[in-house]
Amino acid sequence: MLVVMQEGASEAQVQQVIDRMVQLGFNVHRSTGVVHTVLGGVGGKQEFDVATFEVMEGVQEAHRIMSPYKLANRTFRPGGTVVKIGGGGHPPVEIGGNQVVVMAGPCSVETRDQIERAAEIVARGGAKIIRGGAFKPRTSPYSFQGLGENGLELMRAAADRNGLLVVSEVMDLTQIPLLVQYADILQVGARNMQNYNLLRELGRIRKPVLLKRGIAATIEELLLSAEYILAGGNYDVILCERGIRTFENYTRNTMDISAIPVVKKLSHLPIVADPSHGTGRRDKVAPMARAALAAGADGLLMEVHHDPDHALSDGAQSLYPAQFEELMGQLRMIAPAVGRSI
Amino acid sequence: MLVVMQEGASEAQVQQVIDRMVQLGFNVHRSTGVVHTVLGGVGGKQEFDVATFEVMEGVQEAHRIMSPYKLANRTFRPGGTVVKIGGGGHPPVEIGGNQVVVMAGPCSVETRDQIERAAEIVARGGAKIIRGGAFKPRTSPYSFQGLGENGLELMRAAADRNGLLVVSEVMDLTQIPLLVQYADILQVGARNMQNYNLLRELGRIRKPVLLKRGIAATIEELLLSAEYILAGGNYDVILCERGIRTFENYTRNTMDISAIPVVKKLSHLPIVADPSHGTGRRDKVAPMARAALAAGADGLLMEVHHDPDHALSDGAQSLYPAQFEELMGQLRMIAPAVGRSI
Amino acid sequence: MLVVMQEGASEAQVQQVIDRMVQLGFNVHRSTGVVHTVLGGVGGKQEFDVATFEVMEGVQEAHRIMSPYKLANRTFRPGGTVVKIGGGGHPPVEIGGNQVVVMAGPCSVETRDQIERAAEIVARGGAKIIRGGAFKPRTSPYSFQGLGENGLELMRAAADRNGLLVVSEVMDLTQIPLLVQYADILQVGARNMQNYNLLRELGRIRKPVLLKRGIAATIEELLLSAEYILAGGNYDVILCERGIRTFENYTRNTMDISAIPVVKKLSHLPIVADPSHGTGRRDKVAPMARAALAAGADGLLMEVHHDPDHALSDGAQSLYPAQFEELMGQLRMIAPAVGRSI
Amino acid sequence: MLVVMQEGASEAQVQQVIDRMVQLGFNVHRSTGVVHTVLGGVGGKQEFDVATFEVMEGVQEAHRIMSPYKLANRTFRPGGTVVKIGGGGHPPVEIGGNQVVVMAGPCSVETRDQIERAAEIVARGGAKIIRGGAFKPRTSPYSFQGLGENGLELMRAAADRNGLLVVSEVMDLTQIPLLVQYADILQVGARNMQNYNLLRELGRIRKPVLLKRGIAATIEELLLSAEYILAGGNYDVILCERGIRTFENYTRNTMDISAIPVVKKLSHLPIVADPSHGTGRRDKVAPMARAALAAGADGLLMEVHHDPDHALSDGAQSLYPAQFEELMGQLRMIAPAVGRSI
Repeated sequence: MLVVMQEGASEAQVQQVIDRMVQLGFNVHRSTGVVHTVLGGVGGKQEFDVATFEVMEGVQEAHRIMSPYKLANRTFRPGGTVVKIGGGGHPPVEIGGNQVVVMAGPCSVETRDQIERAAEIVARGGAKIIRGGAFKPRTSPYSFQGLGENGLELMRAAADRNGLLVVSEVMDLTQIPLLVQYADILQVGARNMQNYNLLRELGRIRKPVLLKRGIAATIEELLLSAEYILAGGNYDVILCERGIRTFENYTRNTMDISAIPVVKKLSHLPIVADPSHGTGRRDKVAPMARAALAAGADGLLMEVHHDPDHALSDGAQSLYPAQFEELMGQLRMIAPAVGRSI
Repeated sequence: MLVVMQEGASEAQVQQVIDRMVQLGFNVHRSTGVVHTVLGGVGGKQEFDVATFEVMEGVQEAHRIMSPYKLANRTFRPGGTVVKIGGGGHPPVEIGGNQVVVMAGPCSVETRDQIERAAEIVARGGAKIIRGGAFKPRTSPYSFQGLGENGLELMRAAADRNGLLVVSEVMDLTQIPLLVQYADILQVGARNMQNYNLLRELGRIRKPVLLKRGIAATIEELLLSAEYILAGGNYDVILCERGIRTFENYTRNTMDISAIPVVKKLSHLPIVADPSHGTGRRDKVAPMARAALAAGADGLLMEVHHDPDHALSDGAQSLYPAQFEELMGQLRMIAPAVGRSI
Repeated sequence: MLVVMQEGASEAQVQQVIDRMVQLGFNVHRSTGVVHTVLGGVGGKQEFDVATFEVMEGVQEAHRIMSPYKLANRTFRPGGTVVKIGGGGHPPVEIGGNQVVVMAGPCSVETRDQIERAAEIVARGGAKIIRGGAFKPRTSPYSFQGLGENGLELMRAAADRNGLLVVSEVMDLTQIPLLVQYADILQVGARNMQNYNLLRELGRIRKPVLLKRGIAATIEELLLSAEYILAGGNYDVILCERGIRTFENYTRNTMDISAIPVVKKLSHLPIVADPSHGTGRRDKVAPMARAALAAGADGLLMEVHHDPDHALSDGAQSLYPAQFEELMGQLRMIAPAVGRSI
Repeated sequence: MLVVMQEGASEAQVQQVIDRMVQLGFNVHRSTGVVHTVLGGVGGKQEFDVATFEVMEGVQEAHRIMSPYKLANRTFRPGGTVVKIGGGGHPPVEIGGNQVVVMAGPCSVETRDQIERAAEIVARGGAKIIRGGAFKPRTSPYSFQGLGENGLELMRAAADRNGLLVVSEVMDLTQIPLLVQYADILQVGARNMQNYNLLRELGRIRKPVLLKRGIAATIEELLLSAEYILAGGNYDVILCERGIRTFENYTRNTMDISAIPVVKKLSHLPIVADPSHGTGRRDKVAPMARAALAAGADGLLMEVHHDPDHALSDGAQSLYPAQFEELMGQLRMIAPAVGRSI
């Protein structure tokens, strides 16, 4: 770590900082400049709070040098992680490899008929994985809250019939056993990105986890949340950009497309994009899906419904089947420009 | 609800919107202006998604009229809610009444000695309630994670010895029974503000809940989360402003002091402020505590430690005992200016 | 306009709102619901402040219906605007037509040699317009502030020799005559987006204006600023997305790619993207340039320098010549997917 | 400056960074840790771009040590600056001293009668300075744009009659001579905070400048803008917090009360708060004015109008005369708690 003392900091203040660094196990190198004294610390423990130094008397600024995540860091696996999903009766799907993977389906599983139609549409369009929620976190307590286990059963059956794999959200650690039974990828929603008890438990299972970025989470915080899962021994983590909250509210969120190349540089984990939640408006899904692919995303997660006008949730951001098909065609044209197929 | 059609919207488009409104149970009043047609809907169901209309062809904008929360709305209890806490051996404490209530203590319970000292300091200073975490949500998996039940035992004993009540965080719905046993107020942390399963369970208990605003939550979303608890029959909800995330990062968060008068207008629920998390820096706690009081807060939640330099968590934002005492003196001077005592 | 009264608003309060609306020239339609009274106003003046109604007693919410910009609104020219640039000795360039236009060059004009090399590089790569600053708005008063008129002369000569047009920033209304003399497009920087005196003067000239979105400007505010120029009779306005300020600070700004399709829907004006300022980092320019094109941008504005490591300003976000060439190749592959050429 | 190399950075990469640092005039100290190599630079030039290092191969992070502002830094005048205003016939007013100074008046000067009434109201309430705009920067080109020089004349006369000093906004460098003639303090609006040509000219005059924080400006940027004025030799700069743009939009802006103690620590310049623009709603002005004072503001800038319901601009955020008087009474009660008078 590095501590820069203020201009005119007293020798006693410098000494106090050094003492604290030593307490934390650092070897301290002092460099006394004309204006500022700088203290460099090497080898101390990683889990200290850098703010402790920032509020000490005479300190101008303090910086942690080691990135606070280790297993999620690109240096841990410079070649990048390819998450392999499925198996059994299904041809396995890889996320993070050459092929860009499309996951599509309705916001919620509503009825057998609805999910069967969705499965057909997305399979025909070229998606490899179907998405659909059985437990819905809703801002209002008066909204539709999902079908629960029955929804998972219906989606699994529809997926199997159409050669698709399944991704579905786990809202709570008590739901993990159920999700593991029905889904190929367990999704952690944006609101749960820092539900550490849940993340810790997901570190103990052996199924891939799709971790969505919280709407106010920095990229560093997203990687720290991934670290919770990796630290438990589950290395199959797929990150997902789905929009952050900004002052602009024409779109529900502002999709941070630049997070895609940034994550690629900082981490070895694959990253996909969710333009449906990223924008909240059907007419913006296609442009943002194309943009995410052009920026280097490893996959796309999108809401498609056979009849969005009557969807029980998120209808406004669900694509019509024809829109989905047209978009898939555009994506196939863009992929080669970034050295990928779809 | 209200839908404003675009200039030049076709009659067919208008009719489609009317049909959708009727489907949702609204009586529709149409007003055809020179430029815009406006459709007003009365009496429909409350839990529809306004975006459904926003993406329809020919629609310029759509507005929900009824606020999406009912029980948290000021119109539900125009006189305001006073939450009564404690009883048994303790003199009850009221939050939302004339007296401004101070809750103070360490970030985490660390040892018996530490929490006993903290209890003495805060009781002597005039706090009525001690705070302290037994389960710590930490951004990094490598940081101190709390003492668990033992921490709760130690804090309860220290509180009882000093005539204090106890507020402590519940991280997960599985922890509710334990917290109910030891704490007088169950705190929901900012990261859990939209953990709806947890909120729903807290609606079923009969102990007050202190609900912290998420760092990216609008005031409306905070009130909707309170609604989850109220809807379960637990009306003793105390809201807490503790800083939002903005582009400014000199302070860890930007404390939204204006949320205090805004909540007072929109809702009947009491609101307290947490300047420790709101700023993340000890030297900013006192000014922001004074500001929150001056803006009308019903209480303050603050971190105080007998030895912040060696705290296991949040040391940088914990007040020294002498700072806490000095601040309490200032607060006593300000309270009469807003017609309160402390 | 629409005013929604609070539940339980008194008749006197309703009457006061009606009176105010009448004062502003509105014909008022009153609709009295079971819970809320709604007042619709038609035909009043456009330039009122909607907040005037929001703070009136008994008012729950107030909405302006007419969008506050008229000339920038898509309804004004549903087919879209194509800005024609240049002429004279140059083949004219169109922005907003089928072809996506690339504008590239250094941040600042530094020397004759530097701008000549830049012109060669960008012309060879396929750019039609060279960019370069002669007057530099710098955050610090101690940084390089530009070559002034001499810079413009050098850039004009280099552009002419390479068959390029010129875009350059006007910082101040006193500089307009000078810029008109040398540049084909006058650029208004993000910090000047709401410099209304400058905008008003630019409405009086007959050269195209490239108007950059301010880092904290909503899309509506960007269109209102364009309205200032259009209202003066200059209809050749090109909008530019160049990143907004958010809590994420790994990138200098967060480029709001979704602003591109949003502007396309709301306005007839062409919109280009500036991934150099949008990210502030050279290694993120290519992915974001591709993303902007895939999302529907009409052009790209990028910084390229023959030797970025020794640029006097913005070196960190300037592309190396080889990077620029490689990127142009990728862009040519993506353009057909959105029905464009480059 | 400090550069931290990535884990595994090659010797050649380290050498390139060292070379660049040497080019910029730094003496380089290298410290080779087990994981990271850290390069410290001393004595180089101040006006370099730290991003230049961030994008170099093998670099993990780079930090500037010297704060980029020198004259605005608290170390330049540890005791703090007291700006003395007025003189001539008026008793001088000090901002930054023990007394908290209230500046109040209408948004715009509208008529002789209106400004005369305003002057009486604010003088009677205890304000020392009258505010009022003669040139109005308005988001829409169709709104009232101010009375111009005539407005200044009317305000000067009203101020003189009531023993008040005058603060008024300068929108453009061409307006400086006019403003200097009529006003005692020249106000730079939030939108002009980074209008560097204007700031530079204001450095050459000898009247105090009130510099408002831009809605998306960090505190560091505010101080850098102040530096432009100070660097010209005008040391009488008063900073002003007036709200920043965040995702919360119940209030027009989010007033960053914590900026007040932060500026006090970083700089010697006085800081005042503008709760009228900070909130945009009359009913929030009083709580935020009290909060700003309690947090340590040196003054308050507020909008008061004898008849806000008919104000030509900003009526919704202007206090009624009776509200202003009541607020002044509350402020007088709070001031002693922070060791001030009013």
